[in-house]
Amino acid sequence: MRQGLGINNYYTKLNLLKNMPFKAIPEIGEFGLINKIAALAAPTLAAVPELLTGIGDDCAVFQPSAELLQVSTTDILAELVHFDLMTTPLKHLGSKAISVNVSDICAMNALPRYALISLAVPQSFPIAMIEELYIGMSHAAKEYGLAIAGGDTSASRSGLVISITIVGEVSPEQLTHRSGAKPGELLCVTGSLGGAAAGLKLLMREKEIMLNHIENNEPYTKNVMADLKEYSEAIQQQLLPLARIDIIRYFHSKNIHPSSMIDISDGLSSDLKHICHKSNTGALIHENHLPIHSSTRRIADELQDDALTWALTGGEDYQLLFTIPREKYQIIADTREISIIGEITDPDSGVNLCDRYGMNIDLASISGFDHFSS
Amino acid sequence: MRQGLGINNYYTKLNLLKNMPFKAIPEIGEFGLINKIAALAAPTLAAVPELLTGIGDDCAVFQPSAELLQVSTTDILAELVHFDLMTTPLKHLGSKAISVNVSDICAMNALPRYALISLAVPQSFPIAMIEELYIGMSHAAKEYGLAIAGGDTSASRSGLVISITIVGEVSPEQLTHRSGAKPGELLCVTGSLGGAAAGLKLLMREKEIMLNHIENNEPYTKNVMADLKEYSEAIQQQLLPLARIDIIRYFHSKNIHPSSMIDISDGLSSDLKHICHKSNTGALIHENHLPIHSSTRRIADELQDDALTWALTGGEDYQLLFTIPREKYQIIADTREISIIGEITDPDSGVNLCDRYGMNIDLASISGFDHFSS
Repeated sequence: MRQGLGINNYYTKLNLLKNMPFKAIPEIGEFGLINKIAALAAPTLAAVPELLTGIGDDCAVFQPSAELLQVSTTDILAELVHFDLMTTPLKHLGSKAISVNVSDICAMNALPRYALISLAVPQSFPIAMIEELYIGMSHAAKEYGLAIAGGDTSASRSGLVISITIVGEVSPEQLTHRSGAKPGELLCVTGSLGGAAAGLKLLMREKEIMLNHIENNEPYTKNVMADLKEYSEAIQQQLLPLARIDIIRYFHSKNIHPSSMIDISDGLSSDLKHICHKSNTGALIHENHLPIHSSTRRIADELQDDALTWALTGGEDYQLLFTIPREKYQIIADTREISIIGEITDPDSGVNLCDRYGMNIDLASISGFDHFSS
Repeated sequence: MRQGLGINNYYTKLNLLKNMPFKAIPEIGEFGLINKIAALAAPTLAAVPELLTGIGDDCAVFQPSAELLQVSTTDILAELVHFDLMTTPLKHLGSKAISVNVSDICAMNALPRYALISLAVPQSFPIAMIEELYIGMSHAAKEYGLAIAGGDTSASRSGLVISITIVGEVSPEQLTHRSGAKPGELLCVTGSLGGAAAGLKLLMREKEIMLNHIENNEPYTKNVMADLKEYSEAIQQQLLPLARIDIIRYFHSKNIHPSSMIDISDGLSSDLKHICHKSNTGALIHENHLPIHSSTRRIADELQDDALTWALTGGEDYQLLFTIPREKYQIIADTREISIIGEITDPDSGVNLCDRYGMNIDLASISGFDHFSS
């Protein structure tokens, strides 16, 4: 592009040249776009009967042999959309990029086997920074027992883009979809919620302080960034989330089969709606059963924000949300890492939150994170 | 980032903050970077013995069961690095993005099964344009018999980025690596070479003309772009290359096992050197045996450029370069789509081109395409 023809004007002009109807992505949203893509992909499915599940779950499912299923997932992370290098150490970013994909593999009750990693990197990006990124990826891969098997590197005209695909394996009996929840079943979540959102808010505040220093040409010292130790839990949940592979290993060892499962990447509210939609059920969750860490509540108070909203819509917690039959209650109740937050209901009841005053709130009115919302 | 802090300054500043040695990617080149990445990925391999081949071939190779191998590859395509929407119809771009990955699958003598597709899309990108892109992808996927199984969509702060992963299958007997060539074997290539580079040069010329019209505020009409029909072959090779799955099916039907194979994405010279390096051999190719289409030669004359250079270093031809034992000569000689361009030699002889005057030229002095060269 020549000077003065910004990228937005450029697309509008191209679109006019090609005589296409103009509608931008925010008008239909991320899920509207996914539906359009799924419809266009549908004609390719007939040729490959071994593909058991296509677009619409945490992973695609492929059957290479009778005894084994393969699950695969991919995530694309773009600079200044998903991460900000000013507040994100590159090792942490590498680890997180692996973890968010492993989290999708876990959501199928599967274990990861290998990863393909693609990077589009600005030419001015120092090699030492790419190495830091890979050190973080390699470290996370070792933790999860998966091999970094290949990838691609390319230049980028703008920011860093990381695209990772991970392939995992699961036996046919253990495979768990988003669908499969039944009315009366218990709804469970691992770990705690809202911490990643709290960490993000803190980092954004610190960035503002740092930028003001840079703009005023004040010398940078480590002390510029306020001492963040007291917030370390929330910041770690944002920068260095871990996929709950420990829970999947626990399920396998205890022979627990969730009837449905999803990982919480967009926020509890949005991801619960996916389970209910795919399972054709409703759900009722209880505010006072939601696992919100005390440090998350403290940060919310300090920032005059709301920890419940973070838990419901903040996203990026990478916990597992799953359902089990009521008779499995005792096994789950033994585990500190799992909270029972509600139950699955009839589809007509909708998806509701019973708040601390006993009032039912329709979660349809609360939306999750949409990458294309402005 | 705030106004005035351009992305390049931004990285330099970050690097200084983090106290890292500064060396940019062009200093070590794309292959230097790949070597660094492979070293960082190595510690992850021990945990997954079923991963038979990691970084360093056209695909990773994984063994899900005794009878079957799985090959997988990924490519990341960035706007204004790999494609220019001003000269690239979106349907063609979608098809090409699938084809370049299928080409890597074919280079292992395998057939593609399923694809995961990730897009990072600027918010202002019209939905109709994304649909065009997917129509092209879906069309190509159907041609190759592979299923579009999933993917990810995200916003992008800059241009369009397409990242595709394709998984394919092959029997253990048919798997073909870059290594495996032996001195005395025949070196063969499919189709013709240099056409994609010729097409690119033509499109760049037409773009200049088009931009001049836009800058001068002359109304855009279809006639602005000169009539390109006479060049349609070269332009098609650039915009709509097809992976040589037909050749792989032919190999399987005739029970032909190449001893080594690679697809020509960076140019014959660079990709031949990969085969020789991995096989620990030299090679001698003959200029007058190289399949350069007459239309490619005509375009080179018209643009006062050199068709041989395009064939050796232009890249993006997506033909297959492979070796077979001499006794298989007759089977290959029957096929119009395959040319015998030379033979494999001892490693000490190096990698050479015998030009039309009978002079040997060391191909080490001729380099392929490097995405990070400036």
